[in-house]
Amino acid sequence: MTSRWSISKIKVTEKLPAPAADRGLLDRRAFLTGAVKVAGLVAAGSLSGDLLTTTQTAESAALETPLWMKIPGQPPRGYGQPAKYEEEVERIFYQRYKDIAPGAGMSMTPLHQLQGTITPNGLHYERHHNGVPDIDPTRHELLIHGLVKRPLKFSVEALLRYPSISRIYFLECSGNSLFNTRPEPPQKSCGAIHGLISCCEWTGIPLALLLDEAGLDPKAKWIVAEGGDAAAINRSIPIEKAQGDAMIALYQNGERIRPEQGYPIRLLLPGWEGNMSVKWLRRLMVMEKPVYSREETSKYSDLMPDGRARQFTFPMGVKSIITHPSIGVTMKGKGFYEVSGLAWSGSGRIAKVEVSADGGTSWAQAALQAPVLPLALTRFRIPWNWDGGPVLLQSRAIDEKGHIQPTHEKWAAQYSVANEYHNNAIQTWSISPEGEIRNVYI
Amino acid sequence: MTSRWSISKIKVTEKLPAPAADRGLLDRRAFLTGAVKVAGLVAAGSLSGDLLTTTQTAESAALETPLWMKIPGQPPRGYGQPAKYEEEVERIFYQRYKDIAPGAGMSMTPLHQLQGTITPNGLHYERHHNGVPDIDPTRHELLIHGLVKRPLKFSVEALLRYPSISRIYFLECSGNSLFNTRPEPPQKSCGAIHGLISCCEWTGIPLALLLDEAGLDPKAKWIVAEGGDAAAINRSIPIEKAQGDAMIALYQNGERIRPEQGYPIRLLLPGWEGNMSVKWLRRLMVMEKPVYSREETSKYSDLMPDGRARQFTFPMGVKSIITHPSIGVTMKGKGFYEVSGLAWSGSGRIAKVEVSADGGTSWAQAALQAPVLPLALTRFRIPWNWDGGPVLLQSRAIDEKGHIQPTHEKWAAQYSVANEYHNNAIQTWSISPEGEIRNVYI
Repeated sequence: MTSRWSISKIKVTEKLPAPAADRGLLDRRAFLTGAVKVAGLVAAGSLSGDLLTTTQTAESAALETPLWMKIPGQPPRGYGQPAKYEEEVERIFYQRYKDIAPGAGMSMTPLHQLQGTITPNGLHYERHHNGVPDIDPTRHELLIHGLVKRPLKFSVEALLRYPSISRIYFLECSGNSLFNTRPEPPQKSCGAIHGLISCCEWTGIPLALLLDEAGLDPKAKWIVAEGGDAAAINRSIPIEKAQGDAMIALYQNGERIRPEQGYPIRLLLPGWEGNMSVKWLRRLMVMEKPVYSREETSKYSDLMPDGRARQFTFPMGVKSIITHPSIGVTMKGKGFYEVSGLAWSGSGRIAKVEVSADGGTSWAQAALQAPVLPLALTRFRIPWNWDGGPVLLQSRAIDEKGHIQPTHEKWAAQYSVANEYHNNAIQTWSISPEGEIRNVYI
Repeated sequence: MTSRWSISKIKVTEKLPAPAADRGLLDRRAFLTGAVKVAGLVAAGSLSGDLLTTTQTAESAALETPLWMKIPGQPPRGYGQPAKYEEEVERIFYQRYKDIAPGAGMSMTPLHQLQGTITPNGLHYERHHNGVPDIDPTRHELLIHGLVKRPLKFSVEALLRYPSISRIYFLECSGNSLFNTRPEPPQKSCGAIHGLISCCEWTGIPLALLLDEAGLDPKAKWIVAEGGDAAAINRSIPIEKAQGDAMIALYQNGERIRPEQGYPIRLLLPGWEGNMSVKWLRRLMVMEKPVYSREETSKYSDLMPDGRARQFTFPMGVKSIITHPSIGVTMKGKGFYEVSGLAWSGSGRIAKVEVSADGGTSWAQAALQAPVLPLALTRFRIPWNWDGGPVLLQSRAIDEKGHIQPTHEKWAAQYSVANEYHNNAIQTWSISPEGEIRNVYI
C-alpha cells in the first residue's frame, strides 16, 4: 500500500505574505487567513520539492478494507493505556543519581513526542532523592506546627473534605536543561535535555486556609516543608508565598496524584523551582527564619563566578524551547513545517514568543495558543518554509513582567561554570541541508 | 494511629454571611474572603457536631516515622500508573450493548471520584459499536473525496506534518444520562449515570485546511464521516461545521490519542453529540445531502411524544451535575461540605450555575473555576453547611446564549418515553439525615 503513495507539493498562492523573518519564517497567521494555501498538486514519483502532504491520485482514490474492519474489536479497559504502537513514548531516565543514593533518580518528559500543553500523568517528569515511596494514604498525616496558635494534624481523608481550587500550572525542576551547562552541547533528544518540565491541572486546598485554621503567630516568617520519603527533603518557604497561591494538591489532571508526583499529597508552589513543591508532604513547620537545609545550601543554590552562591532563587525564569523540529524529530526534506514549542515563566503570563531561523539575526513573532494562562505552559506555533539551506532555529520568550529569555552566552556569564541550576538560556537547533539536527551553543 | 484521631468542629465567626439560599448554602466567596473561618477546635472523642477537619491535639503533635521513610523507594517507571491504593478508580462498564454486537460496549468516566475539569486519558469515557479496533498507524489512510476538485488521501505521517491547534473541549455521548430516562430513577453512582462525558486538551488539524486543499465543489453541503472500525459508523455533518471548528485530532492531553478514543486519528466536532466525532476516521465524503445512515435514523434521533422523531440534534444541551456529594461519595455527618460539580454547554461558555438544597425552591450562585472556556467542562463550587436535615440537592446551569437547564419533568415532556438521547435534565440527589444519598426525580 505504501508503495502507491505519491507526494504533493505546496502551492503558494499569488497572495504570498512577505516573510516575517529570514530563512522562510512566515506570518504566524498565514494558515489561518488562507494567505498560504496548502494545495494537493500531485507529482507522482517526485520526492523532491516543497513537500507537505502525502496524497494518492484521484484515480486510485478508493480505500481497501483493512483487517481491523473485518473483525470485532476489543472491549474497553477499566483504566486505559496508550496504543501499543506508541510504546517508545516514555519518560527518559537519567541514571547518574543512582550512584548517589539507592533509588534516587529522575525521569524526563519526552517533549519532542508530545503536543499541546497538558502533560499526561504517565509522562509527567519526576525527580526524587531516594526513590518513590509507597505511602498508604490511610496512614499518612500532615502536621502543621511551630509558630502557630494550635498545631494541627490532618488525615488525607480530612483534607479531601476541604474547599478546593483547580488550576493549570507548570512544574519545572531547577536543574532542567542542566546538560546545556556542560562545555560541549549534548546531542540528546529535546526531552532528554529539557524534559524536567511538565504541566497539569492541579486540584487542592489553598494552603492559606489551613494556616488560617492553625492561626499564625505574628513572628511567623517562613515555613519549612518536609517530604515523607526516605530523603525527607525539606525546603524553607517565605510566608507570603504560603499565604498566596500555595496549594496542598490532591489531584493531578482530574485523578488523585500519582506516586511519582507525591501521592497522596504534595505542596504546590506555582512558578517556583520544582523541589520546593515538596512531594509526599508530611510536615509544615512555621518558623521565624529559614532552616537552611542541605537542599538550599549545598544543593539548589546557584554558584556565581566569584565563588559565592546565590541562595533562594525561587521563581523559574522566562523560557521557551522549540520541540518541533528538534533532536528526536525527523526532518523530511525542504518545504513547509510548523515550528512549535513551549514557553513559560515563573513570574506570570507569556507575553510574546519570537522565532529565528538565522541564529538570532532576524525574529518573527509566533502565534500563542489560547488561553494563555499565568504560570502554565503556553504552546507557540509559526509556519516555516524551509529552503533546504543550513539554519539555526531559536525561540525567545518574553513574559508579562518584561523578562526576556537570555542567550546561552549571556546566561552563562552570570554563573560559575559549575552551576547547573536555573538555565533558561535560548536553545539553538542547527539543521543541516541533509536534515540533521544538532544542539549548538551560540 | 487512627485511634488517636480526634475531631475538630467548625468555628463560624461572628461575621457569618447571610445564607445564599435555604438549607445552608453559603455565599460562594465565603472561604475566599475569610467570612467563614475553619477553626480547629479540638473536641476529643466527640463525633457529633459540625465536622470539617480531623486533627490531633497539640500535646500529641509529633509525627512517627513511617516505614516508607526508612527504606529507599522505587525508581520511576517509563510510563507512570496510578497508585495501587486507587485501583478502584476505573471506568464503569455498561454491559447491555454486548448483546447487540460482539465487542460493542461503553465505559463511563467515574465523575464522583475525580476533581477539576481535565479527564485523565485512562478514564475518558468510551462508546463503540463493534469493539476497539487495533489499527496499525503506518497502514491507516484518510480519504477525502466526493464533491471536491481533487480527491486526497493522507497517511498519518503526512497529517502529523500539518499546522495544528490545541483546544480544551468536552465530549459527551448523546446517550449520556440515559438511565435517568427510565421510569424509576436508578440508584447508581454519579459516574454510572452521567459518566458519558469527559474533557481533554485535543491537538489536531483544522479540518477547514484539508477541505481547502481538496477544493470544495460549490454544491458541497454535507460531509459523511466514516470510521475505520468493524461497525464503520458514519454520520453526516453540515459543511459549515466542517469548515468551522471541526478538527482532525491526533493528540489527547499531550500524547497520541488512545485506542478507545480513535487512535490514530478521530474527527472532533466541538460541542456536538459524541458519536459524530467519528473515531478511527478513514473517510470524509463530500455530498450535496446527508446520507441518512443507520446512526442518524434508527439511532441518534430523538423520539417525540407523537411518534415522530427529531433528527440531527447536533449541539449538546446546557447541563450540570453535582459530583460531590453524589451517589458514590460517602457523607460524614452534618457540617461543612464543599458542593462541587461540572457544567457544560454545546452552545458556548457557561454563564452561571445555581445550586439548590431544597429541591429548587431557593437557589444560590456557585463559583465558577477560571478559565471558563467555551465547549469545555467548567467546575463549579459552593460552600454548604449541612444542618443534618433531609435535603434535595440540585444544580442548574445557564449558558452564554441564555439556555437554561430544564427540570426532569420539563425535559421529559418534550419526548416519547422511549427516547434515550439528549437528556440534560437537572439531577436531584436526595440526602437523608442518615447521610444516604439517593437519585430522585422531582
